[in-house]
Amino acid sequence: MSTRRDFLKTTAAATLLPSVIRAQAPARKIGYCIVGLGRISLNQFMPGIAGTQNSRIVAIVSGHRDKAEKTAALYGVSTSAIYDYGHYDDIAKNPDIDAVYIALPNGMHAEYTVRAARAGKHVLSEKPMANTVRECEQMVAACKQAQRKLMIAYRCRYQGTHLRAVQICHDGSIGDLRFIEATFGFNIAKGEWRLTKKLAGGGPLMDVGIYCLNACRYLTGEEPRSLSASSSVVSPDGRFTEVEENVFWNMRFPSGVVATCATSYGSNCGNFFKAVGTKGWVQMDPAYSYDGLRFKAHLAAGLDIDTPVDDASPKQFTREADHFSQCILENKDPRTPGEEGLRDMKLIEAIYKSATADKPVAV
Amino acid sequence: MSTRRDFLKTTAAATLLPSVIRAQAPARKIGYCIVGLGRISLNQFMPGIAGTQNSRIVAIVSGHRDKAEKTAALYGVSTSAIYDYGHYDDIAKNPDIDAVYIALPNGMHAEYTVRAARAGKHVLSEKPMANTVRECEQMVAACKQAQRKLMIAYRCRYQGTHLRAVQICHDGSIGDLRFIEATFGFNIAKGEWRLTKKLAGGGPLMDVGIYCLNACRYLTGEEPRSLSASSSVVSPDGRFTEVEENVFWNMRFPSGVVATCATSYGSNCGNFFKAVGTKGWVQMDPAYSYDGLRFKAHLAAGLDIDTPVDDASPKQFTREADHFSQCILENKDPRTPGEEGLRDMKLIEAIYKSATADKPVAV
Repeated sequence: MSTRRDFLKTTAAATLLPSVIRAQAPARKIGYCIVGLGRISLNQFMPGIAGTQNSRIVAIVSGHRDKAEKTAALYGVSTSAIYDYGHYDDIAKNPDIDAVYIALPNGMHAEYTVRAARAGKHVLSEKPMANTVRECEQMVAACKQAQRKLMIAYRCRYQGTHLRAVQICHDGSIGDLRFIEATFGFNIAKGEWRLTKKLAGGGPLMDVGIYCLNACRYLTGEEPRSLSASSSVVSPDGRFTEVEENVFWNMRFPSGVVATCATSYGSNCGNFFKAVGTKGWVQMDPAYSYDGLRFKAHLAAGLDIDTPVDDASPKQFTREADHFSQCILENKDPRTPGEEGLRDMKLIEAIYKSATADKPVAV
Repeated sequence: MSTRRDFLKTTAAATLLPSVIRAQAPARKIGYCIVGLGRISLNQFMPGIAGTQNSRIVAIVSGHRDKAEKTAALYGVSTSAIYDYGHYDDIAKNPDIDAVYIALPNGMHAEYTVRAARAGKHVLSEKPMANTVRECEQMVAACKQAQRKLMIAYRCRYQGTHLRAVQICHDGSIGDLRFIEATFGFNIAKGEWRLTKKLAGGGPLMDVGIYCLNACRYLTGEEPRSLSASSSVVSPDGRFTEVEENVFWNMRFPSGVVATCATSYGSNCGNFFKAVGTKGWVQMDPAYSYDGLRFKAHLAAGLDIDTPVDDASPKQFTREADHFSQCILENKDPRTPGEEGLRDMKLIEAIYKSATADKPVAV
C-alpha cells in the first residue's frame, strides 16, 4: 500500500506543477541530440521540445543529410552538429549535447543507448525499450556504469487525464478496482519496418499493445502475478510472415484485479482502456493517440463525466521532455526509468511465451 | 459458407416481416401458461405477449395465490387456470394451454420442461437453458419424444439492431471480421437466488456472460474451436461462497476470429459487444438491456452510425413470443431451439473446465 501511495503522491504533484508556473525556471536548457528523423521526431518530439522552457535541440543524427539540414535550419541547429550514423560516437565531443532522444527502430535502441551512455550522454529512448529483456538489461547497466540517466518515453505517464484516471482508481471514487479492459490496434500498411522481426522485435504487442500493458500496470499500481495469452495470424495478404498479427491476453494482479487486453495490426481493435470498480468506472477512448483523447467516468458519487481532453499534439511530448530535462537538471530519477521499460519487456516476453506454449504463465 | 448464408437469409427475412404487416394474421392465438411470476414474467414477458397478435396468456403457475389472482385478473385469465406447483401436471387437462413459458430459477428449467412436454405442451424456456449439459439433453429428448417444440428465450436473436450487426459482420460492410469483444456484468445484491449454486447452476457466466457467448456465436456465425478461461472471487463480502464472481475468456473461431469476453457479479464490467473487421467495426452499448440500447458503427464506406435504438421494453419479448407462436402455428423450427441452448451450455461447461484447470481447452 505504501508503494501505491508514494506513486500517487508523485503523480499528483506532477499534475499540479506544469512548467509554466514553476517558481524558478531553470537558467540552463538541456541540449538534445535527435537520433532518427522519422515521423515521431519530426512531427511530435521536436515540436514538443519547442514548447518546453528547459529543453532545446542542439544536434541531429540522420542518414539523410538533406532532411537533416532542413530540420536543423528549422530548429536553429548548427550544421556542424549534424551527424551520420558512421559518426554517431562523435557526439561525445559535443558539449552542447546533454541527452539523446532515440527514435530508431526498436532493434537499434539498445546499441544506440549503450553508445550514447559511453559518450557521456543521458538517454531518452522511445518505447518499446528494446527487442529483448537482455538488451534492456544492457541499456540499464550501461547508463548506470556511465552515471547517466535513462528514461523510456512512456508519454501517457505524463498526460493529465491518464494521471487523473490513476487517482480515480485508488481514491475510492469508483469503489474497489476490479477489472481493466484495454485495447490498441490498427490496420498496418505493407512494407513498414514494424513488420520486420529484426527491427521491431515483434508485432503489435511491442508497438501498441505495450500501451495497454503499461496502462494496466499504472492503473492498478501493481505487477501482475500471472498471465495467459494467445496470438494469431489471420490475414492472408503476406504482411505477417515475421511478426504476429493479433495478441490477446489476460493478467491477474495480487489484489484480484483482472485485466483483459487485445492488440492487432490487422484491425482497429480499439484505442482505449476502461477500469471498472465496484461502484463506478473510468475510461479513455481514444486513450493512446497524440491528441483527440476523450475521458469518461461514472463515479460512485453519482457524477458522470464525458469530456474531450484539451491536450493538442505535441503537448504530451512537451511534458515528457520537460520531465526528463528537469530530472537531469535537478539530479532526480525519471518517473519512467529504464527499469520500467525492462519490467514491461519481461512481461512482453512472458506474453509471447504463454501464447507459444498456449498456457498461462506465472510472472 | 452455406450455413452462414442460410442463417443470414433467415434473420433478414425475420427483420423485414413484423407481425403487423403479415398479410394473413393467424385466426388462432397460442395460449401460454406462465410458469413463475418473477420480475421477468410480470414486467417483461406478460406485457410482451399483450403486444402480439398471435399469443395470449391463458394460465399461470405460481406458489403465491394472491399474486397469481391479481395477475390473472390483469390479463383476463380465469382463476380456474391458476395452478400451484403441487398441481403443475394438471396443465395437461387444460386444452387452452398450447405452450408454457418457464421463468423459474435455472435449476428448475429441466424438470418443468420435461413435465410440460409430457403434459403435451410446447416449451419456451428462459436462458440459461438449464444447469448442465445433461439437463439440456434431457429437455431436448423429452420435447422430441412428445413431438412438442422447444425454444430458448434468447431475446437478442429477435432484436433488430442485433440482427443488423450480424448482417454487417458478414456482408463486407466492415471488411473481414477479425475480433469481438463482449462484456456483461453488474454488482449483484446479497441474498439473490442467483448466488445459490443449486438454483443458478453457476455465477455470472450462466446468467449474463451467456449473452456475450451467444453474441460471439451469432456475430461470427461460427462455433469456437478452442477457448481459454479464468475465473475469480475477489470481493470479501461473503456473496460468492457458492458461485464465481468473475469469468474472463477468449475463444478462437475457425475463420481466425478471436473473441474476448468478461462477465462479473462484482462490478458493472460492461454491457456491450464490439465486432471489429479489417475495414470498420460495429458495436452495441448497452447491448443486452431490455431497452435503452445504443447502436454504433464505423463502416468501410466511410459511414459513421451512432443511434439510440427505438425499441422500448417489452418489445424484445413481444418479438420473441410472436416468433415462437408463429413456429407453433405454422409448424416451423424456432430460430433458437433447445439445440441452441445446449450448444451454449456445452461451451459454458468448457469455460468452467478451462478456468478450473487453468489451461485452454479444445471444443
